[in-house]
Amino acid sequence: MNYSIFGESHGPAIGVVLEGVPAGVAVDLDFIRAELARRAPGKGPLSTTRKEADEPEILSGVFEGCTTGTPLCAVIRNTDTRSKDYAKLKDLPRPGHADFAAAVRYGGYQDYRGGGHFSGRLTAPLVFAGALAKLMLNQKGVEITSSISVLGGVADPSPEQVEEIVLAARQDGDSVGGAIACTVSGVSAGFGAPDFGCNAEGIFSQYLFAVPAVKGVAFGAGFGFACMRGSEANDPFYMDGPAVRTRSNCAGGVNGGITNGMPIAFEVAIRPTPSIAREQDTVDLSRGRNAKLVIEGRHDPCIVPRALPVIEAAAALATCELMGI
Amino acid sequence: MNYSIFGESHGPAIGVVLEGVPAGVAVDLDFIRAELARRAPGKGPLSTTRKEADEPEILSGVFEGCTTGTPLCAVIRNTDTRSKDYAKLKDLPRPGHADFAAAVRYGGYQDYRGGGHFSGRLTAPLVFAGALAKLMLNQKGVEITSSISVLGGVADPSPEQVEEIVLAARQDGDSVGGAIACTVSGVSAGFGAPDFGCNAEGIFSQYLFAVPAVKGVAFGAGFGFACMRGSEANDPFYMDGPAVRTRSNCAGGVNGGITNGMPIAFEVAIRPTPSIAREQDTVDLSRGRNAKLVIEGRHDPCIVPRALPVIEAAAALATCELMGI
Amino acid sequence: MNYSIFGESHGPAIGVVLEGVPAGVAVDLDFIRAELARRAPGKGPLSTTRKEADEPEILSGVFEGCTTGTPLCAVIRNTDTRSKDYAKLKDLPRPGHADFAAAVRYGGYQDYRGGGHFSGRLTAPLVFAGALAKLMLNQKGVEITSSISVLGGVADPSPEQVEEIVLAARQDGDSVGGAIACTVSGVSAGFGAPDFGCNAEGIFSQYLFAVPAVKGVAFGAGFGFACMRGSEANDPFYMDGPAVRTRSNCAGGVNGGITNGMPIAFEVAIRPTPSIAREQDTVDLSRGRNAKLVIEGRHDPCIVPRALPVIEAAAALATCELMGI
Amino acid sequence: MNYSIFGESHGPAIGVVLEGVPAGVAVDLDFIRAELARRAPGKGPLSTTRKEADEPEILSGVFEGCTTGTPLCAVIRNTDTRSKDYAKLKDLPRPGHADFAAAVRYGGYQDYRGGGHFSGRLTAPLVFAGALAKLMLNQKGVEITSSISVLGGVADPSPEQVEEIVLAARQDGDSVGGAIACTVSGVSAGFGAPDFGCNAEGIFSQYLFAVPAVKGVAFGAGFGFACMRGSEANDPFYMDGPAVRTRSNCAGGVNGGITNGMPIAFEVAIRPTPSIAREQDTVDLSRGRNAKLVIEGRHDPCIVPRALPVIEAAAALATCELMGI
Repeated sequence: MNYSIFGESHGPAIGVVLEGVPAGVAVDLDFIRAELARRAPGKGPLSTTRKEADEPEILSGVFEGCTTGTPLCAVIRNTDTRSKDYAKLKDLPRPGHADFAAAVRYGGYQDYRGGGHFSGRLTAPLVFAGALAKLMLNQKGVEITSSISVLGGVADPSPEQVEEIVLAARQDGDSVGGAIACTVSGVSAGFGAPDFGCNAEGIFSQYLFAVPAVKGVAFGAGFGFACMRGSEANDPFYMDGPAVRTRSNCAGGVNGGITNGMPIAFEVAIRPTPSIAREQDTVDLSRGRNAKLVIEGRHDPCIVPRALPVIEAAAALATCELMGI
Repeated sequence: MNYSIFGESHGPAIGVVLEGVPAGVAVDLDFIRAELARRAPGKGPLSTTRKEADEPEILSGVFEGCTTGTPLCAVIRNTDTRSKDYAKLKDLPRPGHADFAAAVRYGGYQDYRGGGHFSGRLTAPLVFAGALAKLMLNQKGVEITSSISVLGGVADPSPEQVEEIVLAARQDGDSVGGAIACTVSGVSAGFGAPDFGCNAEGIFSQYLFAVPAVKGVAFGAGFGFACMRGSEANDPFYMDGPAVRTRSNCAGGVNGGITNGMPIAFEVAIRPTPSIAREQDTVDLSRGRNAKLVIEGRHDPCIVPRALPVIEAAAALATCELMGI
Repeated sequence: MNYSIFGESHGPAIGVVLEGVPAGVAVDLDFIRAELARRAPGKGPLSTTRKEADEPEILSGVFEGCTTGTPLCAVIRNTDTRSKDYAKLKDLPRPGHADFAAAVRYGGYQDYRGGGHFSGRLTAPLVFAGALAKLMLNQKGVEITSSISVLGGVADPSPEQVEEIVLAARQDGDSVGGAIACTVSGVSAGFGAPDFGCNAEGIFSQYLFAVPAVKGVAFGAGFGFACMRGSEANDPFYMDGPAVRTRSNCAGGVNGGITNGMPIAFEVAIRPTPSIAREQDTVDLSRGRNAKLVIEGRHDPCIVPRALPVIEAAAALATCELMGI
Repeated sequence: MNYSIFGESHGPAIGVVLEGVPAGVAVDLDFIRAELARRAPGKGPLSTTRKEADEPEILSGVFEGCTTGTPLCAVIRNTDTRSKDYAKLKDLPRPGHADFAAAVRYGGYQDYRGGGHFSGRLTAPLVFAGALAKLMLNQKGVEITSSISVLGGVADPSPEQVEEIVLAARQDGDSVGGAIACTVSGVSAGFGAPDFGCNAEGIFSQYLFAVPAVKGVAFGAGFGFACMRGSEANDPFYMDGPAVRTRSNCAGGVNGGITNGMPIAFEVAIRPTPSIAREQDTVDLSRGRNAKLVIEGRHDPCIVPRALPVIEAAAALATCELMGI
């Protein structure tokens, strides 16, 4: 199964095409909508005020409620697009955003309105695809869960702490970054290979780094390994009835690029939202000189809570590839 | 350019095939040998005592000293293979190693001697490929450097500290992990894309996680982003003569999956060598019961110093893919 | 540049996603519509009576009239879908069609109405993609032309012969096959490689066999080589001013998988439309017994004339891949 | 499973790396050698006089007689290389050969001795890979056979006719082309898909066009479809006990890119060997002027008989990809 995400924040629609979907998967639209709702903005004091239904229209690949096995395309129309907010940004790349890199990459032809193809809004079709992947994985006993492991420097924050941290950042006209811990359980041992293009960690990382704002991916003890000795890092094997298991899971469920039957556990680092209310230093590309920038409009001070279903979606698609679904 | 690494630790030979190599690259064998020597074991008190020349034989793709543009195969013969050390490990998977995962994955047909295809020795052909990639990149002004950023919990250790930390681990019959910081400078802005399979971070991570023992990859501020605010994380733009640059490089040279012209900077986490002298808990796969294991033979207490040229090799190959070389 | 075509004949819409489109290509919608019109049915006595506008809606990847470089999605709504014609075919696979193979492949979940994803209608998005590719190729001096080389056994038929052959088949409640000769001129020497996945003929054939009804692909003298000697088959080189050219083009512009600067010339075999008015032998899949089938509804007695822009589209996409566009 | 073939005719060795080989396949070296012997030159009056053992050395991926599942590399040393025969050809591209196209493609860095990487000798590692694929396919009940369908214009020639045709060409200092019919039986219905990159005919053609000298690929009735009507071309279904079969096999076992359970039947066109004894017109690339060329040395007047195992090998690898082996 592979996917292509298309669309721009202020174009007619965004969407996804999935090729290689198995035939006969019951498309539970309520579940898909619920996943999209987890990602959707505009739900409270913590988020941007842009409100869109994010209602997917399935154009192909589903017949009488089930996948047909042929390419599945779903689109979500853009309805709430206020282009005027963005016009002045054309020549003033926003620090931390892809504006400058994209202007070079695409020779100035990119749709700069609202981040264009780089907009966080493009994670909606990813969540659609991930929801479909979850439906398939659930049938095979695979479950994916995630939680905020760090927010603004606070480890394992409670919901109250999350609200407090985000509101404080908003009050300061600023934003905060975090990290998300994700676990894929129910994948049996023996998927993956050590080689380039086949190893479990490489497959996951490819999907995870395709999520905007992800800047780090680490499995099991991750960067904690740098402070450990082998005697701590090695997960001792033991028999759990007829099953071989490990007492700890420092390896995050993967040895030598192959799953070992323990939960696949990883953490991703999420950079703070680059769009902040404060004045920032930038350059004026049309005049080739330094400039000041104040970004107006509606912006999340923190996307980490909304990123949970997105990271799960990327993990679900990675798991499908790993398991050959 | 893509590569296939083949071989087993105790088979006839290991090697690599490179497809898509540009024609006309002068193959500087002295440089390649020097890179292989940086990785080679047996050079001092800090390393395993296995000694092999690691002399590559180029079977194809080079004619009159230059690459031909057709597939290049290089092999390194295995000469110093003492198989008896490993026979008893067949049914006793070593904790932290891929033994168990591989036994499931390959149905017991894998070559278990010395880690087989999972052996760290397989990084020698990777270094060969990376050395060739470096030769091409150097012609384009791209330089790759790396250093140990953490060893056994100590940040930016001096050579004396490295020796001390490794010797202490050896004395304890243990091993230590670390982290490596790597920088790719000279890549201009505009390479990569935000999409799956094309984004700069995804490409790098795919190569880096294919290196045995790498368990985490993070760009720029990496997991530090989880403790930062947007106002700290955003790299302010300024004009440096006619060039657009950023005052900081928290993004690690990549925005939205596209290079921004600043050095590509990343860090990888390296797990401690799983082979340690201490007795460990494992299982006996042939009898389905718990067992004790003492690993004999020669083993590195720390592979981090030898991993520097390997990480650079992976980065060089990733850079070639990113730049379309 | 790669493409994914999606849609079913009687679903909401068909379409295509193109990834890797270069930025800055002026999207000449009049040209694209003209190409779609060449393929469209319902234009005369020779064709099916299904009439649809085939008006593409571009959802993404185009901004202010030019491609942005990010994925381009275009959809064509299905409006004239009379599903009742097809209901009875569910259990009676039509000879020559994919009905039976698809029922096995997709476990009965395929959309069987009007051929579903196998419908010739799916060539409309292919023509859209090919038209865009032609716009890019024209800028580089590459031109693609095609003609009917055989129709119903008649070589190089005149328009009058085409009409006569098709009408005769229709009168007999039958259909006719043919062959199309296509030439891609303006590709300079040196594109392609001998190796799997890179050779020019392999690349072209991959695109051409993805066109429904194509059953053969041959370059230059093609199957005529089987009756030739080397002295006839070898194209003699000569200097044409500073350019190296060949006096004949038996090789079809490709030697050893690499273009030689002469026009890329190939022929494709097109099977007769399987949907014919005559009663045919088939099986009843639900009862596991032999059955008779009469296909009702509207059907082309010959798709060869309409296939010309489709073959050109496939050739245009193949040329883009070959030239690294 | 994918393969990379490397080597040059007059370099140290040629070989192949196979990735994705299933673990546990018994490597029947006698069978592999027999397949290589079918391809080997120097066996009679019909062939070149170059004699080499073509003994493969397996460097990796096989342990205790079975495949390990990790990459398998096999090399064949070049021993009988008389480079002097070819030196003068450096600037005089041989008509019908890849010499000129390669010189442009590789900027003059290609190994021109004996055709270098373009040599027919490179089909030996392909036969090695195909033999391994056949061993796997045989376990699944798949058989591959082939025969000469046309030689020098004679259809279905007897062995006596083959000898006569080839000797006549040799006497004339010329060579002859032909066609090979190949059948893959035992593949059940439901493999493949209509889409680009997945369809059965596209997969086969990709492998077949990677064989030097193949200039056409056609399935079932192939180019004969151009002279047929639908009523002849449609294969009528019938029940054969519980199995659905077709009375004819014009489709060559594939409908809509998916296997239908009938034998996969195809034909390939093989161009006459370009190396002939007669004087030919060419150009002198170093002087930019017309020139005459007489090719000396040993050359096959006809490679069609030796191509049988090569086409079967390509078909075997294609079948493995199609069936997901």
